[in-house]
Amino acid sequence: MRQTILYGPRDIRFEERTEPVIVAPTDAIIRLSATCVCGSDLWPYRGLNDVKEPMAMGHEYCGIVEEVGSAVTSVRPGQFVVGSFCLSDNTCPHCKFGFQSSCEKREFMTGAQAPLARVPLADGSLVATAEIPPEDLIPSLLAVSDVFGTGWYAADAARVQPGSTVVVVGDGAVGLMGVLSAKQMGAGRIIAMSRHKTRQDLALEFGATDIVTERGDAGVAQIKQMTGGVGADSVLECVGMKESMFQALDCTRPGGSIGYVGVPHGVEFDGEMLFFAQKNMMGGPAPVRRFLPDLMNLVLQRKINPGKVFDLKLPIADVAEGYRAMDERRAIKALLQP
Amino acid sequence: MRQTILYGPRDIRFEERTEPVIVAPTDAIIRLSATCVCGSDLWPYRGLNDVKEPMAMGHEYCGIVEEVGSAVTSVRPGQFVVGSFCLSDNTCPHCKFGFQSSCEKREFMTGAQAPLARVPLADGSLVATAEIPPEDLIPSLLAVSDVFGTGWYAADAARVQPGSTVVVVGDGAVGLMGVLSAKQMGAGRIIAMSRHKTRQDLALEFGATDIVTERGDAGVAQIKQMTGGVGADSVLECVGMKESMFQALDCTRPGGSIGYVGVPHGVEFDGEMLFFAQKNMMGGPAPVRRFLPDLMNLVLQRKINPGKVFDLKLPIADVAEGYRAMDERRAIKALLQP
Repeated sequence: MRQTILYGPRDIRFEERTEPVIVAPTDAIIRLSATCVCGSDLWPYRGLNDVKEPMAMGHEYCGIVEEVGSAVTSVRPGQFVVGSFCLSDNTCPHCKFGFQSSCEKREFMTGAQAPLARVPLADGSLVATAEIPPEDLIPSLLAVSDVFGTGWYAADAARVQPGSTVVVVGDGAVGLMGVLSAKQMGAGRIIAMSRHKTRQDLALEFGATDIVTERGDAGVAQIKQMTGGVGADSVLECVGMKESMFQALDCTRPGGSIGYVGVPHGVEFDGEMLFFAQKNMMGGPAPVRRFLPDLMNLVLQRKINPGKVFDLKLPIADVAEGYRAMDERRAIKALLQP
Repeated sequence: MRQTILYGPRDIRFEERTEPVIVAPTDAIIRLSATCVCGSDLWPYRGLNDVKEPMAMGHEYCGIVEEVGSAVTSVRPGQFVVGSFCLSDNTCPHCKFGFQSSCEKREFMTGAQAPLARVPLADGSLVATAEIPPEDLIPSLLAVSDVFGTGWYAADAARVQPGSTVVVVGDGAVGLMGVLSAKQMGAGRIIAMSRHKTRQDLALEFGATDIVTERGDAGVAQIKQMTGGVGADSVLECVGMKESMFQALDCTRPGGSIGYVGVPHGVEFDGEMLFFAQKNMMGGPAPVRRFLPDLMNLVLQRKINPGKVFDLKLPIADVAEGYRAMDERRAIKALLQP
């Protein structure tokens, strides 16, 4: 089969590799119904993370189970499954507390931008549907695997409650999913910070009540002005840069909460500053496994449509164009069809 | 009258000053029943914070109202009151959310190591008792003003729940009050990290179930060993140094919470490290005003005795000895009798 390999900055290739096989008895092999390019894939693509050797790309996935290892009991060949990008055993103490992304056996999924992929820790990472879902739900089910699960976690970590005033920093796919999550959690006001018309439109469709186009100090001033000088109850930081992180901190009211899901790149905090800011901070890789059953049900019941975040669909052989389109911000998120 | 003035490192004087007067219509003047030396007073005393001009010391206070400004309506002369070290109007949005320590009009109390003190924002900062309390409850009522209120906030910020496993980093007065608070909140296990016999004894009396004498990496290893490799649900950081802050972080399980109430001195956090640690962090000056009525009631009903933290009682004229005893760790906390 052919699969997606990153060789170095902007050097993405779709090339022949051997098909994956069961390595450990806890593995499963799945045939992907769809996969996609993640914003975090752009870090190494742009050369901001080192690429020391060719990397098998892709960690968002759903599809049909082809084969399972001898120890796998919760899924079987022929079932449709969605899995978390963080692989976990779902039985260790951290998993039991709902933090599967800090599982004692945590691995990160790789190699999913391909027709077939190996999923380690299959029992702990995969959730099967009762039936094979209709084709039109595949994008939304794929979204649950990471981008929507991560947006949901951002809202969860930022403690969004019914009636909350929420600010979303970052209008990438995760930020837009954060808007949808806050809406689903009953937020009273959802302010999306975005300067791009297509993203603003999608944010409004997902439930944003307000758009703020300013960023940095001007953006913070605008949020303060809109909240009677107070700041927001909950702020979702969905970027990971220094500017966006401090924008998020400054938009939050004292006693409010920041959920940060963009992997911080070059961000440092001064302890005394954080102390006097007096804001809850919670971040990390999303424990998607905790949310998978509920979010899959919301999709299967057609209550939400996170798959709208995919504004570009390509045959997987054109994966390099998917990366280019996202890198150049021509696309929000590219779905790849194997 | 004579009051306590810090002139520079270890130069504390009790000297003649004019009596305080009403300056703003929202002020009250109180005659102190007792006051005390705070761990945070030791920062400038030790020269770790600059002392640019002579400082009127003391921010923990309770006593009898002598006089109130024309705008004060909630307390009147003759009443016994306890006040927060953070002065607040208790009406602004931050106060309404329970974060009076980030009040839009926040001031910090000063000049309370004296027989008389001016309390700005009296309506928002003071809580009166129904009757003049018995003399033996004065130390515990004084403790509510800061040291106990701050320990309580540490446990609140660290989200201590019934049954929680709690670690307290720091065996100073605030840490010991954190132990008492965690006990009162129903924690299942309270591990106090302390190397000093007298403090260990008091921690056990306040409700600690375990003592760990190791610190740093050895201390973290011990906590991990005691919690099946998991870490604690809630960790109270009651020091503010780099070593204690990272000890607190490392003792917390993923998804667990750190409440930090020691003002950080020279502490820097790397964003990526915090992200992957995946721990709730909440700190800041304690919003004592939120807790004052409930904590005063617990004391008045003799359900708790936080005043035991005062292991040295001195006439206020001997205030310099109070500072020395705390600086040399001969005393946990010195109460001063005007």
